[in-house]
Amino acid sequence: MDKKIKIVGIAGSLRKEAYSKAVLNAAKELTPEGTEFEICGIEEIPPFNQDNENNLPISVKEIKAKLMAADAIVIVTPEYNFSFPGVLKNAIDALSRNEEGRPANPFDSKPIAIMSNSPYMLGGSRAYYQLRQVFVYLNANVLNRPEVIIPFVKDKLDKNGRLSDEETRGHIKKQLEALLQAAMKKSA
Amino acid sequence: MDKKIKIVGIAGSLRKEAYSKAVLNAAKELTPEGTEFEICGIEEIPPFNQDNENNLPISVKEIKAKLMAADAIVIVTPEYNFSFPGVLKNAIDALSRNEEGRPANPFDSKPIAIMSNSPYMLGGSRAYYQLRQVFVYLNANVLNRPEVIIPFVKDKLDKNGRLSDEETRGHIKKQLEALLQAAMKKSA
Repeated sequence: MDKKIKIVGIAGSLRKEAYSKAVLNAAKELTPEGTEFEICGIEEIPPFNQDNENNLPISVKEIKAKLMAADAIVIVTPEYNFSFPGVLKNAIDALSRNEEGRPANPFDSKPIAIMSNSPYMLGGSRAYYQLRQVFVYLNANVLNRPEVIIPFVKDKLDKNGRLSDEETRGHIKKQLEALLQAAMKKSA
Repeated sequence: MDKKIKIVGIAGSLRKEAYSKAVLNAAKELTPEGTEFEICGIEEIPPFNQDNENNLPISVKEIKAKLMAADAIVIVTPEYNFSFPGVLKNAIDALSRNEEGRPANPFDSKPIAIMSNSPYMLGGSRAYYQLRQVFVYLNANVLNRPEVIIPFVKDKLDKNGRLSDEETRGHIKKQLEALLQAAMKKSA
């Protein structure tokens, strides 16, 4: 197989120094050579309004095109109020809608790895499980295991905000390997 | 008790002719005399970014003040991708954050009635239950019963988009009565 596997990564928080962004950066670092890993920001995705769905902003169209072309997707979510952030769900809502006469759902049948994180003990696991339910509707192939759920994430960064904790990096690496396996199986 | 009960209502969809807005309008019509019912739009609430949380836009501050002053809250949600809309969760995320030195969570201990609706058979019940989980964190007093879950909502509107189905209106009325009971108990 000569085809280069392409992964697109999305962090579910807009904060500039979001822990989810640190986790996503670590995933990018840990992706095996020969694999493309592109991080897409969701900062520019406006609140989804169905009245405008046949007239999506460029920002949404661009991210959608990248997701369509991806072989696999990584999503890193924090937990807000016992669930995923509204901004992450809004991005998924906007990105998964039909446009007239065009393919609709970039998540369909696609291998997806979810990672959650929080500064507290449960590591965003409540957000993780609500997000799984969303991807059931979207018919994505979310990895069952290994799961990456990172508690006390604040303590796992170095002073430059890099996720440096070796154990956590090991878990992320294993999940990425499983994701690549799923992607290669699919594109084989 | 002379105090007038104040209810604030929020619809979880931005679409102009959203079914959720029709349901919310019916709730307003069905609220007993002597009770205030104000509908707050969430159209102007921007994507929540924690970097800006000490500098909330006026739109968020105004809705938050109204929710703070409310005795009870009605939330009508559609279902997008087996969950509540991102725009509704984003509104809750934005409205529930701390600002320096000011009270934080307008949902705390407040009686809330959730109604869900969809054009399909399950009436948005998956969104309903994910939303309940969010309000556990926020320590709201979400009514356990009666629940209002409206399937095939499209067929329950008249040609002017008004929710005219009498059976459904009866369910909404009963839920509002239970909400007022809870609000009066609380403010007594």
